[in-house]
Amino acid sequence: MVGIDPRPDLLPELLVQRHALHSNAAPRVWANALEEFCSRVLDVVSPLVPVVKFQIAFFEAAGAPGINTLHVLLRKARRLGLVTLLDAKRGDIGSTSQAYAESVFGKLPAGSSGSSGPIADAITVNPYLGRDSLEPFLKYVRDEGFGLFVLVRTSNPGSRDLQQAEIGSGGAKVYDLVARWVHEWSQGTRGQSGYGCVGGVVGGTAGDQVVCLRQTMPGTWLLIPGYGVQGATANDIAGGFDENGLGAIVNNSRGILFPPHAKPTDWEQAVESALLQMIDELARHTPAGRLRG
Amino acid sequence: MVGIDPRPDLLPELLVQRHALHSNAAPRVWANALEEFCSRVLDVVSPLVPVVKFQIAFFEAAGAPGINTLHVLLRKARRLGLVTLLDAKRGDIGSTSQAYAESVFGKLPAGSSGSSGPIADAITVNPYLGRDSLEPFLKYVRDEGFGLFVLVRTSNPGSRDLQQAEIGSGGAKVYDLVARWVHEWSQGTRGQSGYGCVGGVVGGTAGDQVVCLRQTMPGTWLLIPGYGVQGATANDIAGGFDENGLGAIVNNSRGILFPPHAKPTDWEQAVESALLQMIDELARHTPAGRLRG
Repeated sequence: MVGIDPRPDLLPELLVQRHALHSNAAPRVWANALEEFCSRVLDVVSPLVPVVKFQIAFFEAAGAPGINTLHVLLRKARRLGLVTLLDAKRGDIGSTSQAYAESVFGKLPAGSSGSSGPIADAITVNPYLGRDSLEPFLKYVRDEGFGLFVLVRTSNPGSRDLQQAEIGSGGAKVYDLVARWVHEWSQGTRGQSGYGCVGGVVGGTAGDQVVCLRQTMPGTWLLIPGYGVQGATANDIAGGFDENGLGAIVNNSRGILFPPHAKPTDWEQAVESALLQMIDELARHTPAGRLRG
Repeated sequence: MVGIDPRPDLLPELLVQRHALHSNAAPRVWANALEEFCSRVLDVVSPLVPVVKFQIAFFEAAGAPGINTLHVLLRKARRLGLVTLLDAKRGDIGSTSQAYAESVFGKLPAGSSGSSGPIADAITVNPYLGRDSLEPFLKYVRDEGFGLFVLVRTSNPGSRDLQQAEIGSGGAKVYDLVARWVHEWSQGTRGQSGYGCVGGVVGGTAGDQVVCLRQTMPGTWLLIPGYGVQGATANDIAGGFDENGLGAIVNNSRGILFPPHAKPTDWEQAVESALLQMIDELARHTPAGRLRG
């Protein structure tokens, strides 16, 4: 998976010049630059990966034009045959959660005409508000086959503060509690692959915890961020795959979009090289790669 | 506080007709209807309350035009002298959290010209990703005096699933852990009132837990949702105030915007009556009201 996290301070110099970007530029100017950059990234990566993840924060930062750009890019990604994940980490109570779910997956029943169709195939959500807060999303998962990825154990150092706090006295952590919900939801939606429509976000920097979660959540997708710039290596995330080489989706955002030492004149070549290198490393160090040759 | 949660299915019939709203109407049509409804609500409530809370989900549901409408309404609210809180419950890792913070509070340093000024005075955030995930927001709090409300113990039944799970064996809950962070952050920003710029969201339905949190977090704001439709009464939330009648901000959204038995021909009158009734109930049943007569 390639993460589309278009950090405005890291855009290629050629785009900065052509769009005359500066910190006080109007939202529409920023949105146009994001659209060109991400659209060209999609052209480069779409033949090489099955899934892209859009980080909504960087589009929200460009206001209403940024949201419009996000929708344009999501449509392009789907047209290119990519599975699209909206990384929004939403979570709220009942009717509000319903509004968020409708924003992404459209109004039920799907297939109705007009403007209310889905904009993405899956979304990330935050479990802090509890099981009922995710129920509106789960309805779309069960009824329409959309995907849901719940934060379990994230890749940042702060994951120790709450997620890794011990629940009761049995040694289980807060993230184990969430993992149990995710696994239960996933089991109810399993398809022919043995995997369901609900997965957990488990940081590649989590070490042995990745291996443990793979074992306690058989048949449940793990979405593994943290590869590359955040420090996780292919070896670190190998434990996220099952014995058939399935079950893990590895994300890299900054390491692909903004590779170090990219020449300003040919940034697309640098994006492609970085992605090919990641694919090669995953192929050499993970069961998925070894099994598929 | 009045919560601006414009649920599309509950809009006054007169507006539905004038804007020719239907489930497949274009986002721009929905956004225009939301703008008229909320703008008229602001005119009614601005002389009566100091703070309004905008629930971003209902604006996101109307796509890019909805976000534009949200910005128009936030500007109007601030022009009317209201303190504005964006209820977005955001939370993400480092650079992404930074992008969310910039979206709401503008680019630092504040006061620079152009399009990057703040759109609201405060925002709600989710603590699941840990302390470092909120640091970009806290920088704005410390340097510029913006406000931050962290989810502690929410008003929905699902708050029992994770927030009320017991940490270790000492009886403390997950929400107590978060309350400690919030209190610590608040203490560093206290002003003349004795209260700081960081508060905790504590549902009015939390019963004795409201009283306990008021005691363990002296000088820290409690934002108390759940009043009205969600079932909390003025008595339930009385314990959220300190002995000087300060420290709690009570939110009502649906009960004010969509009062039961409102006549379709004069919904603004019904909004005003519902708000006056809430103010009266709070005045009679809470220390804030008793002390101020």
